[in-house]
Amino acid sequence: MATERLASWAVDLSYSDLPQEVIQAAVNSFYNWVGCAIGGALHPTTKTAYDALIPFFGKGTSTLLGQKGARIDASHAALINGIASHVHDYDDTHLPTIIHPTGPVASALFAQAEALGAVTGEDLILALVAGIEVECKLGLGVWPFHYDIGWHITSTVGAIGAAVAVGKLMRLQRLPMQHAISIAATQVTGLRDMFGTDTKSFHVGRAAQNGLIAAVLAARGFTGSLQAIEAPRGWARVVSVSNNVDEQLMTLGKEWEMARNAFKPFPCGIVVHPIIDGCIQLHRELATAAAAATIERVDVRVHPLVLELTGKKTPQDGLQAKFSVYHGGAIGLVLGKAGPAQYDDSVVQNPDIILVRDKISATADESLRTDEADITVFLSNGTTLQKHVQHALGSVEVPMTPAKLEEKFLDQVSLVLGAEGAQSVSRACWALETFENITDLAL
Amino acid sequence: MATERLASWAVDLSYSDLPQEVIQAAVNSFYNWVGCAIGGALHPTTKTAYDALIPFFGKGTSTLLGQKGARIDASHAALINGIASHVHDYDDTHLPTIIHPTGPVASALFAQAEALGAVTGEDLILALVAGIEVECKLGLGVWPFHYDIGWHITSTVGAIGAAVAVGKLMRLQRLPMQHAISIAATQVTGLRDMFGTDTKSFHVGRAAQNGLIAAVLAARGFTGSLQAIEAPRGWARVVSVSNNVDEQLMTLGKEWEMARNAFKPFPCGIVVHPIIDGCIQLHRELATAAAAATIERVDVRVHPLVLELTGKKTPQDGLQAKFSVYHGGAIGLVLGKAGPAQYDDSVVQNPDIILVRDKISATADESLRTDEADITVFLSNGTTLQKHVQHALGSVEVPMTPAKLEEKFLDQVSLVLGAEGAQSVSRACWALETFENITDLAL
Repeated sequence: MATERLASWAVDLSYSDLPQEVIQAAVNSFYNWVGCAIGGALHPTTKTAYDALIPFFGKGTSTLLGQKGARIDASHAALINGIASHVHDYDDTHLPTIIHPTGPVASALFAQAEALGAVTGEDLILALVAGIEVECKLGLGVWPFHYDIGWHITSTVGAIGAAVAVGKLMRLQRLPMQHAISIAATQVTGLRDMFGTDTKSFHVGRAAQNGLIAAVLAARGFTGSLQAIEAPRGWARVVSVSNNVDEQLMTLGKEWEMARNAFKPFPCGIVVHPIIDGCIQLHRELATAAAAATIERVDVRVHPLVLELTGKKTPQDGLQAKFSVYHGGAIGLVLGKAGPAQYDDSVVQNPDIILVRDKISATADESLRTDEADITVFLSNGTTLQKHVQHALGSVEVPMTPAKLEEKFLDQVSLVLGAEGAQSVSRACWALETFENITDLAL
Repeated sequence: MATERLASWAVDLSYSDLPQEVIQAAVNSFYNWVGCAIGGALHPTTKTAYDALIPFFGKGTSTLLGQKGARIDASHAALINGIASHVHDYDDTHLPTIIHPTGPVASALFAQAEALGAVTGEDLILALVAGIEVECKLGLGVWPFHYDIGWHITSTVGAIGAAVAVGKLMRLQRLPMQHAISIAATQVTGLRDMFGTDTKSFHVGRAAQNGLIAAVLAARGFTGSLQAIEAPRGWARVVSVSNNVDEQLMTLGKEWEMARNAFKPFPCGIVVHPIIDGCIQLHRELATAAAAATIERVDVRVHPLVLELTGKKTPQDGLQAKFSVYHGGAIGLVLGKAGPAQYDDSVVQNPDIILVRDKISATADESLRTDEADITVFLSNGTTLQKHVQHALGSVEVPMTPAKLEEKFLDQVSLVLGAEGAQSVSRACWALETFENITDLAL
């Protein structure tokens, strides 16, 4: 039943079914995906994958984001853009499952939309929502068992979401949509053991490609199991010791997972976010950046997990700094900003930053949540500033505003396309809903 | 340890380490793979996949077997040839695990060998053996739990075997070979729930492609987990409730899995093989095909599973006939042959075949093994002929001889390339070991 139900729901979904908040969430998610994919375009992981696979690239129908208009075949574009969108760990998060939903789905969808042509902004949004709802409902259905066993849930369910999105774009009917789900479901890609290696991002790209291929095959009549999700030896039972998929599917179109998608404000582990958030707020209270020089001591209290995961006191480069609550606090206080530029090696090694970083002492406090922090800054003139962050920016309670999303986008994209290019792409992506043909959306 | 051990062993393996029987088994396996891939080239499943994926094909470096010298990029050639090689369920079988080992490995290997050029027959054999040994040892390590849960073991371990084979061909050192194993291991493709659909063959092709991509990425420095197989959340634990991988790896290079590879004599479910085998033997005793007309009744006794899996009394076409012990018996008795041609719709619908088919009655007998059968033919002149098949042709006890393999090859390949073309490819493949450059091996 589950496979048929997912397929029917996705096939029947029309743009007029989408609440305004879901459309806005879809636009935000696409916008953030573009920012992350361009932001990750020049990362060594992306570049290595690109270089290695050049011999296999087909005719250029689809854009490689952030690569000066370069185009390759849709299948490889899905793969490379998917890698780029995840490589900085800066993409979106469906908080109930920690799926990063847009990477696999949008990477497949945009590549195929360009290859097909004659796709409107609304078509793209509709397909994106269909894919992400299916992806996250399935994710909820196997959460947390599937993740606990060791599967990278973003890519395993991501492939199925990508298949549904591309299938929707290609206007598959119910039966081929069931086959598309099936062909995607059988390609279970992503072991958590790969975290910390290039292959983590590869999972997202490969999921996009798996889903795209599944839909394209199904559109030609290629068959899979019509009960791929729920069969005795189907997806749900094979990849999870327990599941409540049927129950989750009851809420399709009633509770929208798209609307639960959150965006990271800072390109580092989520547990550092409350400290950075609080320190950026304190930066504004420290009249000027110069005032930071008068900081004598900074005491922070955080959940024990923060120190366990990000307790690195003297990070040597940008990658190590992502695991340093001390660097996070210092850039917040001194620079009032924590974008990709503030994680550049040169900033991590900057004496002004190191000076403040070394004045921060952190204490574990079991009574705080992981998205909570308490920060006290002692100044040389005897003043103390205090900030309690109840919920970090980017949480459900304090979501990223469009303005914050845009700041994040411009910070990332400017590093690749320059300030002017970033502004231009930003404007185009905000207008996604109005596009008559998304091939005009030059990324 | 397992990942490093597999990588080290494969990297260190040299041609002089291979016993003559292993070299011969590798040549036989490659030969049979070529026959099956050409034999499956025109199958609708292969054709649908080809048509659907045309937009993604890259520059033609690698041959599509059985397609008049057509070439596409190595990655898609691996996929399409892999599908073709499995689509008739006529490929080889590593009997201890029922892995079909050569499809994923040879499909990746041959495609990449052509793309690289300057690969000798010995290089190809060495890489094939390295890949198949790793594939089957891992398979033994998770057998039977992995298969019982619902994984199509041919493709899940096949991808890892393909990565090792291509990595060996590309002369990867130990660390990149570990990464190649890792990138392949994380792409766990193949749910058994897909059996009976186009996607079953897709698994074999995709496994070839997954492994090829993994090796090519690793060769460029792309990283995965160095403990991908044995880590607490590594491959062996995630895909199987129990495993003895470490124990299996102790026998690497001591007990050769390549030598346990068996070949199907008939293009149908293995449980029908003893009946067909016996009926073909009886055909010779029935002086001429005309004598078959004097058959009054045929009684066969078989293991109960035979009737459960292949009890179809009145098959309507070739596909249904593969699940009919009655058709199998009839073509054996009347035609003395059971190749792909004898599973053509026209043969299944032929009145002479149907006449004999309907005279066969089958009884389940628990005392027989699945590779055993007892057949009694009652003739109108009062004579009875009797045949007890202890072990069917193609079993470990009664392996396919090179002559039988060649007959199988020519039967399949003639249907695609004609008799002369089939003879020419057959001669070339038997001489695999002597090739200075396998690009001269025009398939």
